[in-house]
Amino acid sequence: MATTPDARARYSALALAATPAAWESSRLLLRPDNIQLAWGLPDPGSFPVAALAGATERALAREGRRALQYGGGPALGALKNWVAERSRARGIAVGPEGCMLTTGGSQALDLVARALLNPGDQVWVEAPTYVWAIRLFNRYRARVRGFPLDGGGLVVEAVEEALRAGRRPRLLYVVPNFHNPAGVSLEAGRRRRLVELAAEYGFWLVEDDAYGELYFTAEAPPPLAAVSGGSPAHEWVLHLNTFSKTIAPGLRLGWIVGPETAIGVLGGVKLDGAVSPFVQTVVATFLAEEDFDARLAGLRALYRSRKEAMVAALAQTMPEGAGWTDPDGGFFVWLRLPDGHTGEGLAPAAAREGVTYVPGSAFYPDGDGAGASHVRLCFSFYPEATLAEGVQRLARALAGPPGLVQGL
Amino acid sequence: MATTPDARARYSALALAATPAAWESSRLLLRPDNIQLAWGLPDPGSFPVAALAGATERALAREGRRALQYGGGPALGALKNWVAERSRARGIAVGPEGCMLTTGGSQALDLVARALLNPGDQVWVEAPTYVWAIRLFNRYRARVRGFPLDGGGLVVEAVEEALRAGRRPRLLYVVPNFHNPAGVSLEAGRRRRLVELAAEYGFWLVEDDAYGELYFTAEAPPPLAAVSGGSPAHEWVLHLNTFSKTIAPGLRLGWIVGPETAIGVLGGVKLDGAVSPFVQTVVATFLAEEDFDARLAGLRALYRSRKEAMVAALAQTMPEGAGWTDPDGGFFVWLRLPDGHTGEGLAPAAAREGVTYVPGSAFYPDGDGAGASHVRLCFSFYPEATLAEGVQRLARALAGPPGLVQGL
Repeated sequence: MATTPDARARYSALALAATPAAWESSRLLLRPDNIQLAWGLPDPGSFPVAALAGATERALAREGRRALQYGGGPALGALKNWVAERSRARGIAVGPEGCMLTTGGSQALDLVARALLNPGDQVWVEAPTYVWAIRLFNRYRARVRGFPLDGGGLVVEAVEEALRAGRRPRLLYVVPNFHNPAGVSLEAGRRRRLVELAAEYGFWLVEDDAYGELYFTAEAPPPLAAVSGGSPAHEWVLHLNTFSKTIAPGLRLGWIVGPETAIGVLGGVKLDGAVSPFVQTVVATFLAEEDFDARLAGLRALYRSRKEAMVAALAQTMPEGAGWTDPDGGFFVWLRLPDGHTGEGLAPAAAREGVTYVPGSAFYPDGDGAGASHVRLCFSFYPEATLAEGVQRLARALAGPPGLVQGL
Repeated sequence: MATTPDARARYSALALAATPAAWESSRLLLRPDNIQLAWGLPDPGSFPVAALAGATERALAREGRRALQYGGGPALGALKNWVAERSRARGIAVGPEGCMLTTGGSQALDLVARALLNPGDQVWVEAPTYVWAIRLFNRYRARVRGFPLDGGGLVVEAVEEALRAGRRPRLLYVVPNFHNPAGVSLEAGRRRRLVELAAEYGFWLVEDDAYGELYFTAEAPPPLAAVSGGSPAHEWVLHLNTFSKTIAPGLRLGWIVGPETAIGVLGGVKLDGAVSPFVQTVVATFLAEEDFDARLAGLRALYRSRKEAMVAALAQTMPEGAGWTDPDGGFFVWLRLPDGHTGEGLAPAAAREGVTYVPGSAFYPDGDGAGASHVRLCFSFYPEATLAEGVQRLARALAGPPGLVQGL
C-alpha cells in the first residue's frame, strides 16, 4: 500500500501561494456605527434596480429560451457591438472582434495574467497600485516591481530608464485614469511616451480603466488604447473595463479590448465557459432601453459632490503635515498622514473612533515601503454628511494621545 | 533598442497549448433543416422563463441594492444552504462550509484543475469521457490517461491494477451517473471500491454529477460523495454539480461540495471575484418559490420519453452490427456503428442526410483509439418525432453507398 501524501502535497503550487491579509486586521475592533472608507463600493442608491428588473422581464419575454440556453441569443452580439461602439466613441480603433466580455473586471485581469504570464516573468506596476492586481500577479508567480507615481501618474521616465538598463517586463499594468488608490491621472505626454515604449521594447501595456468614465472635469480623459489607436503601438495595449462602477458590480460583467490576435488567445484561456448569457442579455436590453450617457452624467455629478465633501472635510480637520490628492474622477483620495503616523499604526484608534480605511502599505508590491504613511479613503459609498463625519473621526484618531495609539 | 519578441513569445505557455477541434469538421456541410444530435443541450422548452422573470422582479424589489453590490446580500447564504441541504438529502455529509458556488459547472472543473494540478501530474479518466474535461486537463499540462469503461461504468479493477503497479494519479475524474458520452452508470460495488482506493492510495476523486438528478428509474443513484460519507474516504472526494441541466445553462451557476479544507483552497484559487450576486439572488429566490422536486420529476418524465423514442428508433432502423446503450438517465446514447464504419468517416454522409453527432474518438484522451467506431447521440434537445427522424437520417447515411461516403 502506498503512503498517502501530506496535506500540502494534495494541492497545486498555485493553491499554496500565500495571500496575506494584514490590512484586514482592524476588523475585530469595528463599531456598529463604523463608517467604512476602506472599500471601493459604488453608491447602491445609484443602482438601476427597477430598470434592471424591467429589462429582465422584457428580455426573458422576448428571447428567454435563448438567453437561458448554452451560448445565448442575439443579445450577446448586440452587447459586444455596444462595447465596440462605446470604445470607438472613446477613441479606440476597434470592432467587435477586438472585444470580449468577461465575468467582471476581475476575470478580465485574471485572463490577461493567465494568457501572458509564465512563472518568473517580470510585471511592472505603479507603486502604489490596485491591491488585487498585486495579489493576482503574485499568484501567477510573476516578479512584481513597482515604479514611482507622482501627481502626473506613473513616472514614465523611471520606466524608460529601467528599459534602457536592459530590463524588460512581460507586461506593465497601469491605471491611467483616477488611479486606485492615488486618485491621480497619467499626463498626456507620459501616455504617448508609454505606448511608444511598449511598442519599441515589446511589452504588453495592460490598462485598467474602471474609472475612466467617471470624470469630474469638462473633458473626458482618453484611454491608453485610444492614445495608441491606429499606430503599431496599438498592438501592445490591452484595455480592461467593467460595468461595476457604471451599472452595478453584482452583475459581474466586464470586458477586454485589444488586438484581435490577443483577444483570440484570451478566449482560448477562458476555461470556465461563457459569461452568463442571462446576465449579458439583461444588460444588453438595459443598455438598449437606457440613456447611458445621461446615466453617466448623473453618476459624475453624484461622485463629484461626494469627492468635494470629502476634500472639504479634510481641509477643515486634518492637522499640520497631512496632505491629500484632489482627484478629477473615480472613487479615491490618497491621504498622507502627518509625520510619525502610519496607516497601520493608526488603524486601532481609527476603528475605535468609528472609521476604517485601507493602510497605504497594502498597495505596494513589496508590502510596505513608501506607503506606510498613507491611507486610501473612498468617497463613493456614503452621502456627503457621512463622509464629513468619517473624516472628522479620522482627525480625532490622529489627535488622540500617541501613547494610547501605540499601546493597542 | 531592444528586439521585440515574436508573436508566440508574447503569450504564456498555457495560452499556446493546442486545442484541436477536428470533431467540428462537418460544420460546413450543414443543411438548414439539420437535426443536431451532437450537443448536450437541455430542452429550452423546459426553462422556467416566466418563473425566473418573476423571481428576478421579486428579488430585486426585496434586496436589489444588495444583490447588485459587491458581495451580495442574504440570498447568497440562503443559496449555499440550499446546496448543502440538497447534498445532504442525497446522502452527502456536508454543511454550507463544505460548499462553494461557481460560475457554472465549467468553472467548478477549472477551479479543481487549478487547485490540484501541477504540470506533469497524472490525471486518470474514463475512456471515453467528457470532451471538455480532456481539453481542460491538457491545458493544465497534465498527463491524461484513460481507463476502460463497460456496462457497469469505469472498470475499477483496471484502476486498482495500475495503482498496485506503483502508479498514482493526482486526481481521477469520473462521471458516475448517466455517463457522458457512454450513458452508463458506475456499479455500486465499484463505487465503494473506488472511494476506498482513493483514500488508500491518496488521490483525489473528482466526480462530475451533472446528470445525477435526471434518472429514469424508480430509485435515485447516490453521488460518490455519498458513498464515502462519514468515512475517511470523504476527505478525497470532490463533488461537482450544476443547475445547467435542472434549471437553465444560460445562468452559469454550478457548485462544488468537498472537505472544508479543500473548499478553502478552491476559494483561494478563484481569482475572478465572486459568482454573480445578481444570478445567485435570482436563483435563490426561484428555489424558495418553486417546488424543485416537482420540477425534477417533470424533467425526468420529459427526458425519459425522449430517450425511449431514440432507443426505439435505433431498434427500428439500425443495421446489423450496430449496438447502443439504453441509459437510465442523463442526455446521451452511445452508439457503436457497424463494422467498417467510423464516426468521422460517416460524418459527411450524415451531414448530407441532415443529422450531426459527435464522433466517438473525441471522447478519448489519446484522440481516437477504441472510440473511432462509436458516436454520441444526444436525446435531450428535440421532441420525440424529431429524434426519430434524426435516427432515420443516420440509418440512411449508414445505408448509403460506401464509395460515395469515401469520395467526400
